[in-house]
Amino acid sequence: MQLGIVGLGRMGGNIARRLAQAGHSCVVWDRNTAAVEALASEGNTAATDLADIVAKLEAPRAVWVMLPSGGPTESTVNELAGLLSAGDVIIDGGNSFYKDDIRRAASLREKGIVYVDVGTSGGVWGLERGYCMMIGGEKASVDRLDPIFAALAPGLGDIPRTPGRETRDPRVEQGYIHTGPAGSGHFVKMIHNGIEYGLMQAYAEGFDILKNKASTDLPEQERFSLDMADIAEVWRRGSVVSSWLLDLTAIALTSDEKLTDYSGAVADSGEGRWTVEAAVEEAVSAEVLTAALFARFRSRQDHTFGEKLLSAMRFQFGGHSEFKNK
Amino acid sequence: MQLGIVGLGRMGGNIARRLAQAGHSCVVWDRNTAAVEALASEGNTAATDLADIVAKLEAPRAVWVMLPSGGPTESTVNELAGLLSAGDVIIDGGNSFYKDDIRRAASLREKGIVYVDVGTSGGVWGLERGYCMMIGGEKASVDRLDPIFAALAPGLGDIPRTPGRETRDPRVEQGYIHTGPAGSGHFVKMIHNGIEYGLMQAYAEGFDILKNKASTDLPEQERFSLDMADIAEVWRRGSVVSSWLLDLTAIALTSDEKLTDYSGAVADSGEGRWTVEAAVEEAVSAEVLTAALFARFRSRQDHTFGEKLLSAMRFQFGGHSEFKNK
Amino acid sequence: MQLGIVGLGRMGGNIARRLAQAGHSCVVWDRNTAAVEALASEGNTAATDLADIVAKLEAPRAVWVMLPSGGPTESTVNELAGLLSAGDVIIDGGNSFYKDDIRRAASLREKGIVYVDVGTSGGVWGLERGYCMMIGGEKASVDRLDPIFAALAPGLGDIPRTPGRETRDPRVEQGYIHTGPAGSGHFVKMIHNGIEYGLMQAYAEGFDILKNKASTDLPEQERFSLDMADIAEVWRRGSVVSSWLLDLTAIALTSDEKLTDYSGAVADSGEGRWTVEAAVEEAVSAEVLTAALFARFRSRQDHTFGEKLLSAMRFQFGGHSEFKNK
Amino acid sequence: MQLGIVGLGRMGGNIARRLAQAGHSCVVWDRNTAAVEALASEGNTAATDLADIVAKLEAPRAVWVMLPSGGPTESTVNELAGLLSAGDVIIDGGNSFYKDDIRRAASLREKGIVYVDVGTSGGVWGLERGYCMMIGGEKASVDRLDPIFAALAPGLGDIPRTPGRETRDPRVEQGYIHTGPAGSGHFVKMIHNGIEYGLMQAYAEGFDILKNKASTDLPEQERFSLDMADIAEVWRRGSVVSSWLLDLTAIALTSDEKLTDYSGAVADSGEGRWTVEAAVEEAVSAEVLTAALFARFRSRQDHTFGEKLLSAMRFQFGGHSEFKNK
Repeated sequence: MQLGIVGLGRMGGNIARRLAQAGHSCVVWDRNTAAVEALASEGNTAATDLADIVAKLEAPRAVWVMLPSGGPTESTVNELAGLLSAGDVIIDGGNSFYKDDIRRAASLREKGIVYVDVGTSGGVWGLERGYCMMIGGEKASVDRLDPIFAALAPGLGDIPRTPGRETRDPRVEQGYIHTGPAGSGHFVKMIHNGIEYGLMQAYAEGFDILKNKASTDLPEQERFSLDMADIAEVWRRGSVVSSWLLDLTAIALTSDEKLTDYSGAVADSGEGRWTVEAAVEEAVSAEVLTAALFARFRSRQDHTFGEKLLSAMRFQFGGHSEFKNK
Repeated sequence: MQLGIVGLGRMGGNIARRLAQAGHSCVVWDRNTAAVEALASEGNTAATDLADIVAKLEAPRAVWVMLPSGGPTESTVNELAGLLSAGDVIIDGGNSFYKDDIRRAASLREKGIVYVDVGTSGGVWGLERGYCMMIGGEKASVDRLDPIFAALAPGLGDIPRTPGRETRDPRVEQGYIHTGPAGSGHFVKMIHNGIEYGLMQAYAEGFDILKNKASTDLPEQERFSLDMADIAEVWRRGSVVSSWLLDLTAIALTSDEKLTDYSGAVADSGEGRWTVEAAVEEAVSAEVLTAALFARFRSRQDHTFGEKLLSAMRFQFGGHSEFKNK
Repeated sequence: MQLGIVGLGRMGGNIARRLAQAGHSCVVWDRNTAAVEALASEGNTAATDLADIVAKLEAPRAVWVMLPSGGPTESTVNELAGLLSAGDVIIDGGNSFYKDDIRRAASLREKGIVYVDVGTSGGVWGLERGYCMMIGGEKASVDRLDPIFAALAPGLGDIPRTPGRETRDPRVEQGYIHTGPAGSGHFVKMIHNGIEYGLMQAYAEGFDILKNKASTDLPEQERFSLDMADIAEVWRRGSVVSSWLLDLTAIALTSDEKLTDYSGAVADSGEGRWTVEAAVEEAVSAEVLTAALFARFRSRQDHTFGEKLLSAMRFQFGGHSEFKNK
Repeated sequence: MQLGIVGLGRMGGNIARRLAQAGHSCVVWDRNTAAVEALASEGNTAATDLADIVAKLEAPRAVWVMLPSGGPTESTVNELAGLLSAGDVIIDGGNSFYKDDIRRAASLREKGIVYVDVGTSGGVWGLERGYCMMIGGEKASVDRLDPIFAALAPGLGDIPRTPGRETRDPRVEQGYIHTGPAGSGHFVKMIHNGIEYGLMQAYAEGFDILKNKASTDLPEQERFSLDMADIAEVWRRGSVVSSWLLDLTAIALTSDEKLTDYSGAVADSGEGRWTVEAAVEEAVSAEVLTAALFARFRSRQDHTFGEKLLSAMRFQFGGHSEFKNK
């Protein structure tokens, strides 16, 4: 099956490669010419611009946009909308805000163009392990694109089957799901990332407490000098907290138990923020997911204005000296 | 190798069974005579009381205590201390507070008895999958007991190896670890459970937001009716949030997507509380682990006094009516 | 000075009354005819609709809209925009979202109409104590309306002066502030309310811990049966936590120390939610303000879906029975 | 009335001075001879050591210990216990952990010595404004010491009376309270401080969001450059968030709106930590008080080990580069 791909970064390039492994052929384009040439040399068809992608695909066309959310995705979708025809499909495989999906789908529907949003999880491991995909959009188009999704998905693998799924949608066990109308794919992916933040922070706090158990501020008989890498490893085996994130934690700690080279200034992307906003909109208490986001905000600061205000108040009422060393 | 086991509940009984599968033989006792008889019928040696266990074991003896933490464990350890001889070992495989371990180990050391604390993870799945064990205590005794731990541990299985572990302690990859002196095993297990609370709460909040996305309080075009069971299943495959807890979540949701029969009044055991106290003692910010604990506290309440106070303040300053319906 | 007032509820009616006390005269209207008649009988001019308010005011007119935020305010502002002339002012004294203010101000500016947003704090006590006002909008109009603001504000009273304010804007010590362009008044009021949530929750949690210190779950020698009303009262005098909210708490607890009649299902208005969203937009960690909001969300639930999921996971991995009683 | 005072720091010295203003006379001692001499020159009786204090007081004696909690208080109480006689009273006016009070009171009771714990709020302002005192201990001794407490308390002042207090303990309105048996005074003071942390953090976060509203990361039309000092001032007047802490905030911000000289590395004392532990013991959800404590922990760190672990995980699964600049 033919697929156009716009955006050949870490994710887009590997999507083309995994599709090629399954016998699909892609028409690819990126602003970065070197990325296009690399994929052309692997057997894909190079395009010179968006119009050229459209020209090189047979109708009904499908173009997968794999770009940063916000401006880049928005302008590309808009430009494609002017080039494509009724019956064609635009797939947004990036991390768009789901309300943007809802808006875009409604707008494109007027022209007969179908908008499909695909939340794609898998990161740098996706080429090898496959991508977990959460897909929103009209059923007919999602069904038509099934060979693409099936090729990208991890498949059953050797993961134990969940009892009782016999009568349920078999695609789900392959690692992709049609979640509902446009926007729902990215919504589910957004919550996925929100949960990811929470899981990561739970491990981070736990290991922080383990690490600081060697602190000389504690009574000597209550201090332990624990092996971070071995603890991460042992928990991978038979314990309740085993997970893929723990596997990665074990890899990182085995390589450098002190994590010397990592900055600890932790970026956040839109999904974590939107998850909090969704919780607020729905009046759902989401303490853990929010605390995980806020911990990242704080990690990128030296001292906040709020903290200086605490120092100032303490000085005012208690005469506590909380001034900078001069 | 011989092992005495005191406490034949869900955990203790299965530990005897898993040891038997590996050719070890246990001398078992429990206040519950039926539990003793069941294990005796499977080939273990029944004891009639603690003294009988001690009499039926050859020196140097090892007795595994698998009882609720606090009183039951404390009194049993004390009684065993009066029955055992120098060179014998008491293993506390339960969920004792690590400061109790430190105290007990020091006290028993005066009599030449060795105290080993084993944090044991695996729950009802341990018989089949093996137990992840975190072991604190003196090296010589832990080494001597290695056949026991090796038999209980899950072993390598088919879990991918972490690169770079070649020069590290090979026991860890089998699923058990000698964490350091007495108390350190339960300390690491305690943090394990603290992390478990955090992971569970992260999933809980995420699915709560997914579920409430169908709320009629939201604008109609922004509502999605999502399939909880399918989402849990698809995330098991290739996504960043895959984990054993998610596997269990998928099983539960597949069986009943609405979780109708579960109360939602969530118990907590000591480890979650002690984790928060350890964080406070070490001055480590542990927002997520604490929020997970507090969510359980709140889940068991109708309305708190604090919430009534909020209602009262709102009435006082704003005339807001927040009274009970009468 | 003349002022039109639309919306004669608890806030709007008392604003008219406080203005009357200072010699100002208002042209008032509300959908509720009885409210109009009540204020007319106190010497204000009754209007029959928005057009009538406009007709009865001399140019340049000023109309204070005191309605629920969202739809009611939006439609009233829009209708007034069609009735007023260049040079007239619309004051939104409600709790609008500040981004709506920014949008409305820009739109009205094209017609020469000035939009002023006033965050108004004081609740049911405002008539007597005066209103603290945070005012956004163009300087010339805010200055022209100064007699209105001065009359509504509490004034200096007997509150101790803050040292060093001699060269600063004297209006601030009277209890009103020109915060900047349109939207900034409601933004500051929004944060005010966000802080209010946090303060309230801090007291609520503290009193909850005091109350539960009598719990029979605690060791007997560590239980205290504390007098909630007396503690609230004593803290009003010389302590670091004295505040107006504590004054109100003392009133409520003195009236009924058990707060028997309050539901504890605590409402939230937009400002608390918007505060969290503003924090997320600015990447500011706002744990306390968010936790205060989430506590209200949770207070209105029986059991959340997330809590049931925790029960389900506990059952799956540990065999813990967390089912409803049947 | 005679009172011995041990510990003449900021608090102890001013307590002697405020008592002197009311006509009481103190026998004072401190390791710091200069502090003793200063108070002697103001008319108090200097002692040369603890035994000398005891010698210079008439039975039944009362000695107020005003020292750092933990070791200094513990050793002083123990030494006094050996010097005093049945019927004498030791007052611990510091910030001891209430469980230490319970233990000490029981131990001293065997010798007939009475232990009274006084939680004392007021800080550097206490000499002028009076001290809010929360007093635990046996009724007879607390009653006998009433002249001391009455002199130290702020008194009625011009604070509005709470309606309905006519039949209640009149001491409370003077600013001191007998909370119950030994330990209860410090318990209530501990919760007071826990609430103080929460209130402070609520203001800190609110002002942080106000401050960052000028961030160039926000869309230009949504930025406001707000006056921190004026906002703090205006909220003191008629708003719901007015409080003594806000008064102090206004003083600090008026003096330096940027708080340039404050470090923002915020200390915490035992009470905040013990409050969290009390909440955990009582199974009370105390998100806000805990978040306030954790924010202080985090404020004193550069980057935590947990944050580095987040960076490491992000690198592992997403290839995100979160390394230190080299």
